[in-house]
Amino acid sequence: MDYQQEALKVHKAHHGKISVESKLSVTNQDELSIAYTPGVAEPCRKIAQNPDDVYTYTAKSNLVAVLSDGSAVLGLGNIGGEAAMPVMEGKAVLFKEFGGVDAFPICLSTQDPDEIVETGIRIAPTFGGINLEDICAPKCFEVEEKLQAALDIPVFHDDQHGTAIVVASGMINAMRVVGKRLEDVTIVINGSGSAGTAIAKMLINMGVGDLIMSDINGILTRDNPDLNPYMRWLAEHSNKNDRHGNLADAMKGADAFIGVSAPNIVTEEMVASMNDDAVVFAMANPVPEIMPDLAKKAGARVVGTGRSDYPNQINNVLAFPGIFRGALDVRAKRITESMKQAAAYAIAGIVTDEERDEEHVIPNPFNPEVAKAVAKAVSETWLKEHPVND
Amino acid sequence: MDYQQEALKVHKAHHGKISVESKLSVTNQDELSIAYTPGVAEPCRKIAQNPDDVYTYTAKSNLVAVLSDGSAVLGLGNIGGEAAMPVMEGKAVLFKEFGGVDAFPICLSTQDPDEIVETGIRIAPTFGGINLEDICAPKCFEVEEKLQAALDIPVFHDDQHGTAIVVASGMINAMRVVGKRLEDVTIVINGSGSAGTAIAKMLINMGVGDLIMSDINGILTRDNPDLNPYMRWLAEHSNKNDRHGNLADAMKGADAFIGVSAPNIVTEEMVASMNDDAVVFAMANPVPEIMPDLAKKAGARVVGTGRSDYPNQINNVLAFPGIFRGALDVRAKRITESMKQAAAYAIAGIVTDEERDEEHVIPNPFNPEVAKAVAKAVSETWLKEHPVND
Repeated sequence: MDYQQEALKVHKAHHGKISVESKLSVTNQDELSIAYTPGVAEPCRKIAQNPDDVYTYTAKSNLVAVLSDGSAVLGLGNIGGEAAMPVMEGKAVLFKEFGGVDAFPICLSTQDPDEIVETGIRIAPTFGGINLEDICAPKCFEVEEKLQAALDIPVFHDDQHGTAIVVASGMINAMRVVGKRLEDVTIVINGSGSAGTAIAKMLINMGVGDLIMSDINGILTRDNPDLNPYMRWLAEHSNKNDRHGNLADAMKGADAFIGVSAPNIVTEEMVASMNDDAVVFAMANPVPEIMPDLAKKAGARVVGTGRSDYPNQINNVLAFPGIFRGALDVRAKRITESMKQAAAYAIAGIVTDEERDEEHVIPNPFNPEVAKAVAKAVSETWLKEHPVND
Repeated sequence: MDYQQEALKVHKAHHGKISVESKLSVTNQDELSIAYTPGVAEPCRKIAQNPDDVYTYTAKSNLVAVLSDGSAVLGLGNIGGEAAMPVMEGKAVLFKEFGGVDAFPICLSTQDPDEIVETGIRIAPTFGGINLEDICAPKCFEVEEKLQAALDIPVFHDDQHGTAIVVASGMINAMRVVGKRLEDVTIVINGSGSAGTAIAKMLINMGVGDLIMSDINGILTRDNPDLNPYMRWLAEHSNKNDRHGNLADAMKGADAFIGVSAPNIVTEEMVASMNDDAVVFAMANPVPEIMPDLAKKAGARVVGTGRSDYPNQINNVLAFPGIFRGALDVRAKRITESMKQAAAYAIAGIVTDEERDEEHVIPNPFNPEVAKAVAKAVSETWLKEHPVND
């Protein structure tokens, strides 16, 4: 199927993909007086007296903003807020279909990080959570940090954490398949955008043996003076043996490679230089860092991509619907590191011992148990860590 | 029925009143690839190349923001954005049920007029129109003016223009009932908030004989040095005989009274002092400026209120769904004076010559022909005035 042409047809026929629906019918005076004036004054009064009641009497408890400035749209780059609308509507569709979350696209006309934060704060009364989407690095780090600091609803940049969670879940299962332990292995990540940075941070927090970041400028090292605070943290928490050089140098002897970078930049020789039973997640889209058959030929044992036509598709839809479902269910105020790790283990756990093999380290995204398991793990982790909801 | 208690129950049971729904199902890989990546890239590309295509491929063409800072919520005053959420959700429900418009509440945490404008501009890429709601006067005038000047989608403050349109429609029919012509009569408006100001402006633009504004400070006169620009315009276009004094002085000999002020401030004597066949629209809610039976007893021939339990309910739901339906249908860039007047005549025209009498100058809000007629009048007026969509 030609997805591009089919997408044009479908988007045009439906005038986009989302609608706003009423949960009540309003066909007579009584119904009108309950849904609107004069009855509506009473829930308003309750909320004015006790702000928490907004979760009881309004849709806020299940509403998530999908907030984007369109500065880093997958495969398209900086196309701006308006042109990003089909992606944000698509995200809203997936939130609903996979997690039962009412998500609404907020596409911005500004790309200034402070203005994005300010706008998120100003529209927050409507929402129970904010999913940041397709905002370029490094401003995405700052935007997420500042917005979360200002709000007591979860703020989650899916390009970072959604990807990191699903990669981590795949890595957990891949290590089970090859019989290694996360704390013993060295993982190379190529690409220092929002996804690469978040994956690195998450794996470090999960206790990976060692991690080596590389990008177009080569291996990330502590002696590099030109690092933003986010990369500085990574430099200080990675590359234990202070390796210098390029991607090929990084991959020598490594147990796993994670690519969030560019097509065809990993050679068979580079994969062959890795440790035995190597794991390769080559997620550049649509053309991966190395094609799965070549990686396999060069000795990789587990190979994953971002594509649905190869085994082990690393797909964010496995994470974000359940993450927000779980967070909204317990009114979590943010998504903590432990909640993300719990989500990764929950996704990994969907693949049973019987099913798990080289070609099955990631569950099928259409398995309805995924979002449920993620939601459960996320909400239980929040409640455990916050017996008083603070 | 106790609408307040019933509203609490219903709002709680449904967790608010709106949901965001997907127009597509996403249950397999093909559907996912059309609604989201990789297919979604193609509509994005089209819009990036031709911004107008956002109306073809996204929900923008039918999406209206219901934007409020909660500074002047009907009957409740300044309760803020979060507590205003039930009203804004209610508005969204009415937009959908009466006009087929996908409306979404945006409740703000700021009440600063410039920040409201700025926020409206920043989130505009998502929306085909903005309905301002429950923003207090006089900042509502400035907010609407600046926001409309910055955007090429309609910006419409319903508390002003929706009310003005429905009052005008009732006045058109009331004049038909009492056999007077609008251009011959004197109308008194009491209350100089957003609604009173907009009603005055609209009636002046429609060519009313004379209009006298009054409020807590008495009759609005040209010699008052302390007027904001909006009141200054009204002072210069009203009160042709330069009458001074209080509301009682204003009403002497007047043909119609319109109250958007406070309970029980009009006496029987004041109504009795009006011209024969007086029209009284006493819209303070829930207790009108004078109760209908008293107004009738004092000689008023046509009486309307904001209440559903008396004849001639002046209800904004007669206007705004059709206004936006019509504007969105032809992608109007703003709501012009002529579109508002066309809407008022369309609403008045729903009441047939046979039906029209003292107790029937306003149509039933549940008559499905109302929104259709308003939409038709509004869209046709735009197209006539803008043969090229500019």
